[in-house]
Amino acid sequence: MSTQEIPYKIFLTEDEMPKAWFNVRAEMKQKPAPLLNPATRQPVTLDELSQVFCRELAMQELDDATPFIPIPQPILDFYKMYRPSPLTRAYFLEKALGTPAHIYYKFEGNNTSGSHKLNSAIAQAYYAKQQGLASITTETGAGQWGTALSMACSFFGLKCHVFMVKCSYEQKPQRREVMRTYGAQVTPSPSNTTDVGRAILAAHPDTNGSLGCAISEAVETAIKTPNCRYTLGSVLAQVLLHQSIIGLETQQALKKYNIKPDIIIGCAGGGSNLGGLISPFVAEKLRGESDCKIIAVEPASCPSLTRGRYAYDFCDTGRVCPLAKMYTLGCDYIPSPSHAGGLRYHGMSSVVSELYDQGLLEARSVTQVEVFAAARQFARVEGTLPAPESSHAIKVAIDEALKCKETGEAKNIVFGLTGTGYFDMYAYQRFNDGEMTDYIPTDEELEAAAANLP
Amino acid sequence: MSTQEIPYKIFLTEDEMPKAWFNVRAEMKQKPAPLLNPATRQPVTLDELSQVFCRELAMQELDDATPFIPIPQPILDFYKMYRPSPLTRAYFLEKALGTPAHIYYKFEGNNTSGSHKLNSAIAQAYYAKQQGLASITTETGAGQWGTALSMACSFFGLKCHVFMVKCSYEQKPQRREVMRTYGAQVTPSPSNTTDVGRAILAAHPDTNGSLGCAISEAVETAIKTPNCRYTLGSVLAQVLLHQSIIGLETQQALKKYNIKPDIIIGCAGGGSNLGGLISPFVAEKLRGESDCKIIAVEPASCPSLTRGRYAYDFCDTGRVCPLAKMYTLGCDYIPSPSHAGGLRYHGMSSVVSELYDQGLLEARSVTQVEVFAAARQFARVEGTLPAPESSHAIKVAIDEALKCKETGEAKNIVFGLTGTGYFDMYAYQRFNDGEMTDYIPTDEELEAAAANLP
Repeated sequence: MSTQEIPYKIFLTEDEMPKAWFNVRAEMKQKPAPLLNPATRQPVTLDELSQVFCRELAMQELDDATPFIPIPQPILDFYKMYRPSPLTRAYFLEKALGTPAHIYYKFEGNNTSGSHKLNSAIAQAYYAKQQGLASITTETGAGQWGTALSMACSFFGLKCHVFMVKCSYEQKPQRREVMRTYGAQVTPSPSNTTDVGRAILAAHPDTNGSLGCAISEAVETAIKTPNCRYTLGSVLAQVLLHQSIIGLETQQALKKYNIKPDIIIGCAGGGSNLGGLISPFVAEKLRGESDCKIIAVEPASCPSLTRGRYAYDFCDTGRVCPLAKMYTLGCDYIPSPSHAGGLRYHGMSSVVSELYDQGLLEARSVTQVEVFAAARQFARVEGTLPAPESSHAIKVAIDEALKCKETGEAKNIVFGLTGTGYFDMYAYQRFNDGEMTDYIPTDEELEAAAANLP
Repeated sequence: MSTQEIPYKIFLTEDEMPKAWFNVRAEMKQKPAPLLNPATRQPVTLDELSQVFCRELAMQELDDATPFIPIPQPILDFYKMYRPSPLTRAYFLEKALGTPAHIYYKFEGNNTSGSHKLNSAIAQAYYAKQQGLASITTETGAGQWGTALSMACSFFGLKCHVFMVKCSYEQKPQRREVMRTYGAQVTPSPSNTTDVGRAILAAHPDTNGSLGCAISEAVETAIKTPNCRYTLGSVLAQVLLHQSIIGLETQQALKKYNIKPDIIIGCAGGGSNLGGLISPFVAEKLRGESDCKIIAVEPASCPSLTRGRYAYDFCDTGRVCPLAKMYTLGCDYIPSPSHAGGLRYHGMSSVVSELYDQGLLEARSVTQVEVFAAARQFARVEGTLPAPESSHAIKVAIDEALKCKETGEAKNIVFGLTGTGYFDMYAYQRFNDGEMTDYIPTDEELEAAAANLP
């Protein structure tokens, strides 16, 4: 194994790091549908969007024409603290599976946020600081995004208020403390600090909370607080733009060793990691330069791509955000509390949804017990303990590698290992104790949740 | 900042990774004192030591003459999953301090064990497997070593039984679950599964446990279990040998950019990370090639170097292990429960102790509130959330950088960032809430603890 030409970890040098983000929308003939103002049902304007997001980010959100957007130098400097991230050859996993496939994973977990979320957090905090804001708000589910934003705000000296989905707040006090260590204020959601939180609590006093609900609270707080804006860790086109650094680095690392990917796999909740990873490869497909297969993997308990509808829907439970056209289960859909980890958002990024609708990627759903089995198998041979979210991609990478074992094909399989599972040990414990169960919504449940689509 | 010639992270290539460990004892004229058989008070023999440790490791323990010991290829392959580790230039910390000093840290936390411990764990598991053992035992305090050994055993298909200091077992259920995910059996210590555990529980029913006590239980279990041996994560010369990869990589990374270190700083509990980091640099000093200052940093609550005696003592509370000559507080010394994190061992590696006695390094003790303040300051500017242990080194690195600010000297300060604090959020919470206190033992307490030295 030591004589292999390809190293275990392909590191780019800092000089090789991308200097611009890639906006895949610029290369799409059929663009993603625009965000709509929920009141007028007309496309949102820059001015409207700038009430919620800071202006530079609102501009990025609406820009579907500029292919490359330069990364400001302070963000590049921050990136250098943890980037370029390694593209790792999973030699040990290949050996354990006995597959002729070559498996690579882009590992985004080598930073304190434990995930890729920091790539967009630092950008959003930077533009907020540039605009002279005093504070920003956000929501967090599994906690990775809240941690990332806390780190970014601490770096630029911005106040940060995080609404953390209640069940996660209670299961993960460590996450909360990391955020507090970076100076953030953390509120379990739903809370009685907002109108929408109070309304949800009145209607559902025992709710565990949801991402859609926490978004509503964070948006309301941003609007009501002077010199404050809201930020979001996934779903939006601006976030996919920032996350394109994952795909650009992956593309460059593969080129360095003349490797052509046959299959690219990413887990998908709101779509930020997946969208960022696949953007440059989708562009190659759009240009007819590649026919690689792209697979989005989602939890069977929250199957927006595989079982949702492609329609306009609210991004949040409180229905205060713009409408987005996306594959959605309906903004009232809340995954079963038995579902561990993230990827529990009711909809899917408009960009990813449109690419999916155009047939540029396929989607699979997997159940969580098989996901944790894949996670443990991976951890034991590759060393790294993966986040439950990332393990959705691992599961399908293993499936594809085993298919190669049957056919004898030495395919190049690339997947995104978005983060580490250090703060998910409660879920691992349930798995280790044999107490984890699967939950797959019935057609009737999904029907009911989608009944209120706007 | 972006125009600096030295990158944020100096990565060696996999080809540049050391192929042999460095045994600093080979270059010492006055060797560390030998381990003694506690019954005969004669130097332990290879055969005696091989009853407790596997034979190859016992040989390494006794070998004070061979300067370089080749790293077996399977260990080199495993190392490549997370090594070479980056030597990071702390540009942001320098800027925040306003110091002319150049600060570098060797970051060993980029692996699931969260620390440098994996460097020795994989070696110890490998030699155990080579010898045909079925299982190994160990103890763990903060949990880093237990996690590392669990990962290593899982990789080689060995059973692993970890005795975890009780207060840590209770404060860090996440650590326990990581170990279980890698297939280890974890028992809180003291336990009623061993004679020594039962005796300690009978004498001190409410004890929180200690590292010395957990060692005794792990040794007893190893001796009584067929085809099983004991392993230790620090203190021993073999562990320092394996950890020398930290220092060798650091030396090579510095040479790559023609940087001469003026000050090298490491935290010190049992001495493994410190010994590994400084070994090649001590050798340069012994050869008269360098006059760099080396500083060991220990907690004021467990001050073996700064306030201990240089004498033969037991390595464990149960007094079943060989005697080692070391700076020690007495094997009955148990740090205050208010002390967070690791570095709570009563003695110091014989190698480090002898180097200290010869004046090749100096020692400082720091209190934990100032350590956590340094940790938080570091986290907020450098991104990475450090382990409490590692933060002892951060504290002194900041002190030295601030001295440079006064004198205007652009010294090169290098410190070991041994690990991350993901599993120490309970301690961070106490600090964040202003509830953390300092504990410094009185002379009388130390006097009493040292009264029973053998």
